[in-house]
Amino acid sequence: MELGPPGGAGPAEPGPRLRGLRGDDRAASAAWLSEASAGRRAPSVAAVLPAGGSGERMGVPTPKQFCPVLERPLISYTLQALERVCWIKDIVVAVTGENMEVMKGIVQRYQHKRISLVEAGVTRHRSIFNGLKALAEDQPNSKLCKPEVVIIHDAVRPFVEEDVLLKVAIAAKEHGAAGAIRPLVSTVISPSADGCLDHSLDRASHRASEMPQAFLFDVIYEAYQQCSDYDLEFGTECLQLALKYCHTKAKLVEGSPDLWKVTYKRDLYAAESIIKERISQQICILMDAKEDEEHVGRCLEEMLKKELNHVKVTSGALCHAGRDLQQIILEQCYNFVCVNVMTSDFEETRKLLNALEESNLSILYPVVVISVHFLDYKLVPFGQKMEHLMQIKEFAKEVKKRNILLCGLLVYYPQDYFMMQSSLLCCLRMAYTGHGGWQSLSLTTGCRAERKQRNPGLSVLGNPEPVFIISSYRGVKSEKWS
Amino acid sequence: MELGPPGGAGPAEPGPRLRGLRGDDRAASAAWLSEASAGRRAPSVAAVLPAGGSGERMGVPTPKQFCPVLERPLISYTLQALERVCWIKDIVVAVTGENMEVMKGIVQRYQHKRISLVEAGVTRHRSIFNGLKALAEDQPNSKLCKPEVVIIHDAVRPFVEEDVLLKVAIAAKEHGAAGAIRPLVSTVISPSADGCLDHSLDRASHRASEMPQAFLFDVIYEAYQQCSDYDLEFGTECLQLALKYCHTKAKLVEGSPDLWKVTYKRDLYAAESIIKERISQQICILMDAKEDEEHVGRCLEEMLKKELNHVKVTSGALCHAGRDLQQIILEQCYNFVCVNVMTSDFEETRKLLNALEESNLSILYPVVVISVHFLDYKLVPFGQKMEHLMQIKEFAKEVKKRNILLCGLLVYYPQDYFMMQSSLLCCLRMAYTGHGGWQSLSLTTGCRAERKQRNPGLSVLGNPEPVFIISSYRGVKSEKWS
Repeated sequence: MELGPPGGAGPAEPGPRLRGLRGDDRAASAAWLSEASAGRRAPSVAAVLPAGGSGERMGVPTPKQFCPVLERPLISYTLQALERVCWIKDIVVAVTGENMEVMKGIVQRYQHKRISLVEAGVTRHRSIFNGLKALAEDQPNSKLCKPEVVIIHDAVRPFVEEDVLLKVAIAAKEHGAAGAIRPLVSTVISPSADGCLDHSLDRASHRASEMPQAFLFDVIYEAYQQCSDYDLEFGTECLQLALKYCHTKAKLVEGSPDLWKVTYKRDLYAAESIIKERISQQICILMDAKEDEEHVGRCLEEMLKKELNHVKVTSGALCHAGRDLQQIILEQCYNFVCVNVMTSDFEETRKLLNALEESNLSILYPVVVISVHFLDYKLVPFGQKMEHLMQIKEFAKEVKKRNILLCGLLVYYPQDYFMMQSSLLCCLRMAYTGHGGWQSLSLTTGCRAERKQRNPGLSVLGNPEPVFIISSYRGVKSEKWS
Repeated sequence: MELGPPGGAGPAEPGPRLRGLRGDDRAASAAWLSEASAGRRAPSVAAVLPAGGSGERMGVPTPKQFCPVLERPLISYTLQALERVCWIKDIVVAVTGENMEVMKGIVQRYQHKRISLVEAGVTRHRSIFNGLKALAEDQPNSKLCKPEVVIIHDAVRPFVEEDVLLKVAIAAKEHGAAGAIRPLVSTVISPSADGCLDHSLDRASHRASEMPQAFLFDVIYEAYQQCSDYDLEFGTECLQLALKYCHTKAKLVEGSPDLWKVTYKRDLYAAESIIKERISQQICILMDAKEDEEHVGRCLEEMLKKELNHVKVTSGALCHAGRDLQQIILEQCYNFVCVNVMTSDFEETRKLLNALEESNLSILYPVVVISVHFLDYKLVPFGQKMEHLMQIKEFAKEVKKRNILLCGLLVYYPQDYFMMQSSLLCCLRMAYTGHGGWQSLSLTTGCRAERKQRNPGLSVLGNPEPVFIISSYRGVKSEKWS
């Protein structure tokens, strides 16, 4: 039986979704999802996300869950990862009173669904407890229903995959509690009172306890109701509470490295690189010429496919490929190259921008559009061409409001067909870079105001001023054509 | 007493070197360094670096210590961090037979000093033991001397600072053994045989054991000679060997987050971002006009200082500031903007390139040079200007061999002084980005061949083809001048 499509509204996370499920897991998952989709005895699952932390280890004043990654707060990526899982019915987020409005703004702006906000406690355990209370039946005025299984996750683990959520939920239903674990990266030691080594722990017989964890709701709620103030103040481990107060031994589930917790500033750098890599997996080239004709777009497509052999390059003719474009948008392609061979105006680019604006593609991730134009300075004076092309600024300003980054690329070439291709490729190669995807273009639009923030490194998008990047073939010895 | 300058040949690591030393530590360090510099009873210190790992957790075929970060293998950064510490006399690196030639190439290319290579064993402990054997007195044909204190560090912890090396070395001299520790990021648990939670450890009373560690040589060598095959095969903790076989209780030293171990692919992303941030802390603007004149370079400098308020912006007139330039190079500035106001040739850029080539600045980090030119298309035809400027390709190809990345920036402007400044700033802003430094320009030169490697994300520098980036002010409403 096939696994169902990811649910939830809004654009889903790009990249693989259900990887790593094998044999028994897959059978159990299929049964679970089948029950869920058939509506009979569907096990109800909710999630609680403690997000009251202050992020003191990050070294920045903003709590880490609110730190921007490609301009969007980290917690929004985590919410996206949870809400795309259709069988998680409710997501309860515990935030401090002072961040409540910020959080409401995030939910609204990024169109997160099935989210309820509760006030965080002063410790992680108290925040989780508040989340559980909101889900318990005896709460008045609550729209939430008590779930059979509750998943607890961290706001700062944005790359959680559906497979591990499913594994812990299934294991929790069977064992009462379950949690993701990872091998230890460093040896763990116990210091003596004088700051010397008392003993070191055998690395092979210990594991790092990560998130997500899942519990039968009654088990974990009981544990929190029973537990001491000391536990609530100083405890760090939910699995331990279930063991101590409900004698429930949690099932441990091996998680992937993706589960790592964003803790230090370097983790934000890593998160940004990972997200950029994800949204750079596909490029769509659109041309203002017929598909069956031999023209620069065709060659460009072939060259790009050869060059960027780790990226999916699709193409279409904008003029009669409206349906294709819709399909490409549905596949979550975030990178478009609009090649203007036949005309020198922005008609084709504008059509693409309209289609993108109509979709919700750019709500969660920036969409990059490069409008490519050509110049043979012997035919058209440079000044005249440039003046004409600067119209793009108006479009760029407009679409930037909807997270679409429009850039112009002017290729300077003599009337030599092959040389023009070489020149174009050189430009695109510049624009498209290894793991960063359209990094240089994204960076091109680096907003001045944002760089003045306290964490200047974390925002790289923003400025609506497009800059023309010009490449000249002159004197370039083309590897391919000479 | 002042702390001594960092020793070793070759360009040193940019950024702070001796931070975080306080009170007693500082006094002890000063005494230590004073002894070392006076030559009397200088405690001899060597370092052993096990580098035989296969990097299986990274998910790439290259062992992680050889993965490129800005084109340079990770281990070279670690060697650089150790060799800049003058009181570490010898650095013994244990590498597998199959990587021996690669390692020799790295030592030669990046001009690492005081390095000895030994063959790695099949486990980490065996590799360290081989390193210690090479340092022991009884080895024939060895140029190495037995040190009083030996530091053990990981090849994949490139950001180790001198202060923590000093702290563990001092503590080792006093206690016999010492190691850096960090708070635990995740709770550590012990699983039972059936894959369920047996118990979780109190996070507050445990620490992660990190590197560097240091030992009296006799203590750790004795421990390795005594220890069992089981220890050598399955052990992970040197401090534990010193405790078990020599009853030496290691002193634990709090380390900084910088000590983290590059373990997963995301860590390479983080390392790359950190290094880019470091080499982007200073920009030097050089002009072909007199210092006391009111000209575009002066205004540019002021604007850049306002814009990039987290970066040190220095400036000089190339024509009579040869001494200044030497000073700037000594301070390890890796970013130069060569502004050609008076002339339209490359004379000034060439002078700068010559000075950079004469220095060793670009051995360890890429140096970015932007040659800025101006165009008023009403005065000079664009094609003519462009053709002239494409000469830069020849220079760029030449200097790329020495890790200098030369780019051209052509600013298109009408004869309006203020508008020209605005336009120039717009270009530079594009080139200079938040934490990535000259990221877009570095990315601009992304090499095609390298992107085809198995880990395409890790190399972003390389292609010697400079591309002209053109900005037009037209229609731009300048915030500053309009």
